[in-house]
Amino acid sequence: MRGLAATLMSLCLLAAASGESSQAITVTRSGSQPSREGPSDNFTGSVRIDPLFNATAPSRTSGGRVTFEPGARTAWHTHPLGQMLIVTAGTGWVQEWGGPTQEIREGDVVWIPPGQKHWHGATPTSTMTHIAIQEFLDGKNVNWMEKVSDEQYRR
Amino acid sequence: MRGLAATLMSLCLLAAASGESSQAITVTRSGSQPSREGPSDNFTGSVRIDPLFNATAPSRTSGGRVTFEPGARTAWHTHPLGQMLIVTAGTGWVQEWGGPTQEIREGDVVWIPPGQKHWHGATPTSTMTHIAIQEFLDGKNVNWMEKVSDEQYRR
Repeated sequence: MRGLAATLMSLCLLAAASGESSQAITVTRSGSQPSREGPSDNFTGSVRIDPLFNATAPSRTSGGRVTFEPGARTAWHTHPLGQMLIVTAGTGWVQEWGGPTQEIREGDVVWIPPGQKHWHGATPTSTMTHIAIQEFLDGKNVNWMEKVSDEQYRR
Repeated sequence: MRGLAATLMSLCLLAAASGESSQAITVTRSGSQPSREGPSDNFTGSVRIDPLFNATAPSRTSGGRVTFEPGARTAWHTHPLGQMLIVTAGTGWVQEWGGPTQEIREGDVVWIPPGQKHWHGATPTSTMTHIAIQEFLDGKNVNWMEKVSDEQYRR
């Protein structure tokens, strides 16, 4: 038995050294991950979050699909390593702290730099869906702040 | 002038220390990044690559949308920190070295572990489009290998 264990260990080390992975490809089927509501502490209005993937170390990237009903938006927040949004449907708004509100539409790609305080969401009259991709740093990929008031949203 | 410069520098350092970003949000408009053909060294058949975003340090994640016509596929390859595929249209195949060919369909999410030798593409009769997300390690996010032969593809 000890000889077998040693042989297996050698094979594993060999596989690691050759750059081959001992992990298998994982296919997560459409519809197999339940949607959840965007929690009211971090979102205003009706928001649906569909998880896509979590970071598997040494990868540190996570992603989800977020759908905002008209008027819905995130709270103000930052990401330690930034965030990419790929707008997959509808029309929405994104704003950085102190900056103009920018309209974003299906097919647009948005880069939010690390530490940039911002919010994103739907317009008052249209839904917006985006894929959101962000990396973990020290176990965190978002830092939530105060909600976006109606005055801030409508301005 | 020197006083003004010193004040500005202090403000910048203060912003950096408080975790606020001096970079602005960037919106890349749909259609503003030209499509390119998947190069024949790394792909078989007709493949269209639409760049989505590049890694902006300290972020190390890049992403693109790839469309495979029926019969088209990548060559065998690995990713140093793995790869996530989000199938956005059609039906395709993914296979790891020595493993079964798995069918993937719109809405499915595929995780390919670091160093796992694999290929992905369309089925012989249907197109497939996915968003591909991968992280850079030491300046590389992919390691291309030999092409997938017709025998390997059809098996």
